[in-house]
Parts: sequence; C-alpha cells; structure tokens
Amino acid sequence: MPRHPRIPDAGVTRLSLYLRELSRLEGEGASFVSSAELARALTLTSAQVRRDLSYFGQFGTSGRGYEIRRLKRIIPRILGLEGRMWRVALVGSGNLGSALLAYRGFRERGFVIKAVFDKDPRKVGRVVAGQRVEEAGWLADVVRGRRIQIGIIAVPAVAAQEVCRRLVRGGVRAILNFAPVSLAAPPHVKLRNVDLSVELESLSYYLSSLNANR
Amino acid sequence: MPRHPRIPDAGVTRLSLYLRELSRLEGEGASFVSSAELARALTLTSAQVRRDLSYFGQFGTSGRGYEIRRLKRIIPRILGLEGRMWRVALVGSGNLGSALLAYRGFRERGFVIKAVFDKDPRKVGRVVAGQRVEEAGWLADVVRGRRIQIGIIAVPAVAAQEVCRRLVRGGVRAILNFAPVSLAAPPHVKLRNVDLSVELESLSYYLSSLNANR
Repeated sequence: MPRHPRIPDAGVTRLSLYLRELSRLEGEGASFVSSAELARALTLTSAQVRRDLSYFGQFGTSGRGYEIRRLKRIIPRILGLEGRMWRVALVGSGNLGSALLAYRGFRERGFVIKAVFDKDPRKVGRVVAGQRVEEAGWLADVVRGRRIQIGIIAVPAVAAQEVCRRLVRGGVRAILNFAPVSLAAPPHVKLRNVDLSVELESLSYYLSSLNANR
Repeated sequence: MPRHPRIPDAGVTRLSLYLRELSRLEGEGASFVSSAELARALTLTSAQVRRDLSYFGQFGTSGRGYEIRRLKRIIPRILGLEGRMWRVALVGSGNLGSALLAYRGFRERGFVIKAVFDKDPRKVGRVVAGQRVEEAGWLADVVRGRRIQIGIIAVPAVAAQEVCRRLVRGGVRAILNFAPVSLAAPPHVKLRNVDLSVELESLSYYLSSLNANR
C-alpha cells in the first residue's frame, strides 16, 4: 500500500465522513460494514465507496464487508491525523475567530493554534481562549519563525486576500478560508473555502419538499 | 418533472456544490459542461453526477453535456431557494452565534434571522447585528408565535439537547446544530450537524502527503 496515494479534495472529505460513520457504527456494536451500507449512509453508490477505499489497498473481505476497526485505524493515518500535531495560525480575532479559538474539536484532532493575529489595535494584546492576540503587521515573520503550517482566515472579505498573501509569504502550505470571497494562492498552497450556506441550503430543500408534499 | 423528488441528504449537499461549480464555470465563460467535467471538479464518478442530476429529468444534451444556464435555474428551484424566504431562530449569542448573525451569505440566500436567544441575563437585551437578544426561557412560545421554520443551535454542548427540545416544541421543522454533540430529535424534524474539523482534516491530508513525497 502506498503511504500517500494522491486522492483529490472531495475524496479526502469523504474519508472524514466515512470515519464519522464508522465511529457511529462501532458505537452501535457493529464489527463489519459493507460498501452498500456506507453508500446508503452517505448516499453514494457502492462503486464510489469501493473506489474511495481502494486507494489504500484491498480492505473488503468478500461476503463480510470492511472490518470497521481496521478502517478506523487506516483512515486517520491516511489523513495524516495519527500521532501528529499541526501548527496553526488564526488571523482575525473577531466573533468567528474567537469562536474557532474556543472550538475544542480542533485540538482533539491535532490542530494546535500557535498564533492569533488581528490588525485592530484594540484587540492586539488581549487574551482570547488562552492565546494572546498579536499585531497582524508582523504576520509573515512570526508565521515563519514559529514554523506554522496551516493558516485560518477569519477576517472580513475585503482584508482576506492580503492576509492570504502574507500567510503564503510566511511559508504556510495550507489555508482554510472562512471569508466569503474567492482567494488566489500559488499552486503549491492548498486553499479550502468554507461556505456555511451549503448547510442551510440542505435544510431549505427539506422544508420545501415538506410543503410541496403536504 | 416532479416538483420535489426525494433526494437524500448527501445528494442535496452535492447539488449545492454543483451550483457553486456551475457559477465558477459560467464566470469563466463556459455555456455547457459534461458530467465528466463536473465529476472531475468534485472527484465523483461521471455516473454519480448523471444519477444526481437525473432526479430532475433529462438535462444532458448528448455530445454537448449540460447547459449551465439551465442547471443554474433548476437547481435553486429544487433546493427551495428561489423567491423564497426562510424564517430562522438563532439560539446562542456568544462568539459563534454573533459570527453567524453577521454572516451575510445567509440573508443573500433567503435565510432571515427573526429571533436570537440567550440564557445569559447579561446578554439578553443587547443588540447584535441589528437583532435584540431575547430571553431563552420563552423560546418555544416565541418560535411558534413568529412561525419560525429553522433553528440554529450555537450554544455549548451541555445545553444543546434542551435547546433542541424547545425548538421542536416551538414547531421548528429543521435544525442546524453547531454544538459538538449528537442530538436526538423526532423523525419529522430534519437535523444537520456541522463539524468544522472535516475541513481541517483535508488540509492535514494534503500536508502529510507533501511531507511524504518530498
């Protein structure tokens, strides 16, 4: 099995979702799961599930499906989550930034915030969730000095591109962007945009189908 | 074409993602897109894309693919986003709640926050992003009185289940949960959990494959 097969973005996201589904099934006492069951839970086709999981070699035992415990050990390793700590910088200490700082899920999964920046002088020096907010003017140097690998952008849309540029200058290789704007980054930097509306849109679908079928 | 075919959750989320990809392609001047191109952008199989889009009838013109403008008109209609306004209650006016209140994307897509609740007496009465924060004790009655359809839970994990119960009692039919905990809701209520770690996990994958292949 190759240590790091090249899996495209959406495939990686599906691995995270498989992992959650596997934890749920394990919690219910299951030991094996078929590609058809995983497909049903995530509304994919069985063939898609088999293809996603085949990146790591052959796990399915014909007749019994995948061994849950085995997949739960392999997937975090593939995702680079196992025994690993990623150094993260958060830019923007407003409401969203503060909410992200307080979010426990990040640290639990090995993402440790090593720096928080803001350009508002009233916010610089404050301590939020145990982190002192630093002056954004030195962003690139601090990020480089602390060997930070991931940047999270939680600033207003107008400021986001400049922040992105500085993170890249500081040597960051991956960026998670919460600002509702498309950013440009060089090809060696992985950029992910988070769009919270996607979640609400699925509720909208559900509600309108309710009304239509009533 | 049925007005509201029954599409499962993950399929609905993919519709939102197709919509974003179609906007991007249109911005680049494209008029048609093949299932193979959409599949590549979202790393699905062409068959999966064709299946997702076939819920609404036959759109593909063989040889040319799907007409982008047509799909961009149809998908929002299916998602219940077209010419529609959803009445939303937000529970929790802490950092995350305040960030969500300030998020413009919601209103642009027809989600209008009609009530904000908090149980902290120091927060009740404050105005956040134009909304006065109300006492959470009356949640169910206010939600019912204002005919609110969607509830957003942005409270600490320990308080989330009780908030969920009150939203349901108030007649809400769909809930978006940001608290990092699994909630129980009756089957007629649609519950979506948002897990921000999924996004960071995909960056982790990218960074570890960089290190491995260097």
